[in-house]
Amino acid sequence: MLPTIDRQEDVIVMVDQRKLPGQEVYVRCRTPQEVAKAIRTMVIRGAPAIGVAAAWGIALGVRRSTAKGTRQLAVEFQKICDMMAATRPTAVNLFWAIDRMKRVFGEGAQAGESAEELANRLDREAQKIHDEDVASCRAMGAHGAEMLADGSRVLTHCNAGALATAGYGSALGVIRAAVESGKKIAVFADETRPFLQGARLTAWELVRDGINTTVITESMAGPLMRAGEIDAVIVGADRIAANGDTANKIGTYTVAVLAHEHNIPFYIAAPLSTIDLGTAEGDKIPIEERDQREVSHLGSARLTPEGAKIRNPAFDVTPHRYITGIVTERGILRPPYAESLAAAVRGVAQDSGLKA
Amino acid sequence: MLPTIDRQEDVIVMVDQRKLPGQEVYVRCRTPQEVAKAIRTMVIRGAPAIGVAAAWGIALGVRRSTAKGTRQLAVEFQKICDMMAATRPTAVNLFWAIDRMKRVFGEGAQAGESAEELANRLDREAQKIHDEDVASCRAMGAHGAEMLADGSRVLTHCNAGALATAGYGSALGVIRAAVESGKKIAVFADETRPFLQGARLTAWELVRDGINTTVITESMAGPLMRAGEIDAVIVGADRIAANGDTANKIGTYTVAVLAHEHNIPFYIAAPLSTIDLGTAEGDKIPIEERDQREVSHLGSARLTPEGAKIRNPAFDVTPHRYITGIVTERGILRPPYAESLAAAVRGVAQDSGLKA
Repeated sequence: MLPTIDRQEDVIVMVDQRKLPGQEVYVRCRTPQEVAKAIRTMVIRGAPAIGVAAAWGIALGVRRSTAKGTRQLAVEFQKICDMMAATRPTAVNLFWAIDRMKRVFGEGAQAGESAEELANRLDREAQKIHDEDVASCRAMGAHGAEMLADGSRVLTHCNAGALATAGYGSALGVIRAAVESGKKIAVFADETRPFLQGARLTAWELVRDGINTTVITESMAGPLMRAGEIDAVIVGADRIAANGDTANKIGTYTVAVLAHEHNIPFYIAAPLSTIDLGTAEGDKIPIEERDQREVSHLGSARLTPEGAKIRNPAFDVTPHRYITGIVTERGILRPPYAESLAAAVRGVAQDSGLKA
Repeated sequence: MLPTIDRQEDVIVMVDQRKLPGQEVYVRCRTPQEVAKAIRTMVIRGAPAIGVAAAWGIALGVRRSTAKGTRQLAVEFQKICDMMAATRPTAVNLFWAIDRMKRVFGEGAQAGESAEELANRLDREAQKIHDEDVASCRAMGAHGAEMLADGSRVLTHCNAGALATAGYGSALGVIRAAVESGKKIAVFADETRPFLQGARLTAWELVRDGINTTVITESMAGPLMRAGEIDAVIVGADRIAANGDTANKIGTYTVAVLAHEHNIPFYIAAPLSTIDLGTAEGDKIPIEERDQREVSHLGSARLTPEGAKIRNPAFDVTPHRYITGIVTERGILRPPYAESLAAAVRGVAQDSGLKA
C-alpha cells in the first residue's frame, strides 16, 4: 500500500506529492499547523486524503495541547478546526471529517471526559476515518470493476488514486480492482495541468503496480476518443451537489463533454463523504482559485511572459447530465441523482444510527 | 513587425521560438540543411512560416551551389526540395511553397537560364512567397475583424500569430485588425501543451502589442465557456482538406467540440495556401507524432515516471461540421465547404492565370 499518510507516534507522516515522481520525500508534521500547511501547499491533496489529514491534524492538536481544563481545550479545539477548514474550500470531505471530529469531541466533553480521554477518543475517530476511507476505496473498486469489460482502455484525469485517499484510490481503485480480477486494462492518464497530478502521481502509482499506463496531454483525449481508442472515463470528485453536479479537478468538465460527444460512459468514483446534500447544485460549490505561479512557472522556469494575465481555478463543475454513474462504496448510483444520492446518504446514516 | 524570419545577405535569420519568451535569440542559417533542421526542431513553426522558411532555404541552396552546369544544379535542387519536404508532414503550406519553387525553377531551366539567373529567379520567388504571406495576413485581418464585436472575449489556441507567419499572423492577425479598428478585444490564450506555444509565443507577441491577454491551461477553456466568458474562438490551420476538415495543433478539436457545445462561433483563419483540395477529408491528412520527450520533460526536468508510455501526436483534425467559418485573404468561407473552398482556390488560380 502506498504511504499517502500515516500516524507514527505523535507525528503525521506524508509523502510529499509536490516532489513525486522525481523524489520520494516524507514530510513529518508535529503540529496541527504543520498539517494545515501541508494541505494548503498540496504536500497532500485529493479530497478523501485531505479529510483524513485534517482528522489526524485535529487529533494531534488535542493530544499536544497544554490547555488547562476541558473548557480551554474546547476553545483550542475549535480554533484548530477553523484552521483546518480554512485550508482549501472545494473538497467537502475536509468539512465532513472536521464535523465528525467535532461531534466526537462534543460527545466526550458532554460525558465529562478528561483531556487525555478526549485525545484518545479523537485518535480513535481519526483512525476510523482513515480505515473507513481505505475500506470505501476497496468497496468502490469491487462495485466499479464490474462495469469495466476485459480489454477496456480507460481514461482518467488528475489523480484519484492511492495518493488521493488513505490508500487504494477511488477511480484508480476501480481500475486496480478490475486488474486484480484478471481483466486486461490499459489506462490513459491526462497529465493534468497545471499541477501535473496525472503525469506525476497517477502514472507513478499505476506503473508501480505494473498497470499499463500512457500519459497524454489533455489536448489528446478528444482525438483518441474520436479514433475509438477510449472505452470509458473514470475520475474522482471533490464535491458532489445534491443534484449530482460534480466539482472535480479543472479539466474534468472538458473530459465529460468530450465523452458525451463520443458516446463514451463517464463515471465518477467517490465515497459518500464526497456528497454534499446541503449544496443544491454545482454552481453553488465554492471553486478555489490558486496562485498564478502554478500556471506561469514550472519549478523555477518561467513559461509565460511578463504582462500576461493568468487564470488558475483549481476545479470545475460537471453538470449531472454528463455523468453516466457515480461509483460509491454502496454501489453505483444512477440518474436521477437527486433521488439516488439522497437515498444512499440516508442509508448510511440509518445504518450508523444517525439522522440524515 | 516581429522578426519571425528574414533574409540578410546570404543568411536566413529566425528568432528561436523554442527559447521565447525567456530569451530573444536569433538563429542564422547559412545552408539549406540548417534551414531544414530549424524547421524540424521548431526553431521556426507555424504552417505559413515554415512554407516561407522552406522557400528561403531552397533559394539559399541554389545560390550557394557549386554545381557544374544546370543539369547538375537541377539534381541538387531536387535533393534540397526533398530534404525540405521531409522536415514535417502535416502543414501543407510547406509542400505548396516547395511546389512553387519547383515550378519557377522548371520555367527558368526550360528557358535555358544560367545558374546565376536561376538563383535570382528563386530569390525573387521566395521573396514573393514571403511578401504574399504578410499581405494575406493583413487581408485575413481585414475580413475577419468584421465578425468580432466590440468588447469580444476571444479564445485562441497554439500560436497563429506573427511568429507562425512571415508577419502579423492569421488568427492573431484578425485580433490585431479588430484592435487596430478601435474595438476592445480581450484574448484568452490556451497555453497549448506540450510545446506551450500559447503561453510562450501568443502571450509574448500580444503583450508586446499591448493587447489584453490572459493565459489559461487548456482545461480552463470549457468552464470559461460555460460561465459565458468567451464570445468567439479563432485558431489557425496546418492543412484544410477539400471538405473543410481542418488539421491544426493538437487540442484544436477539443476547443471546437467545447465551442459547439456552448453555441460559440469557431473560426479558422488561414491563407488559401493551407487548403489542400488533393486531400478529400481530414482523416487522410498525415499527423506527425513527435518525440515523447516533449511530453515527458520540460527542459531538463522530468515530469513523468520511468515506465509510463507517452503519446505525442502534434496535430488533430476538426471535422468541418464544427467550423463556423474559414477566414482567408479572399474573405470568409462558409459551409458547404466542398463548394466554397474549391471556388476560392479556383478564383486565385484564375486570377494568376493558372489551372486550379
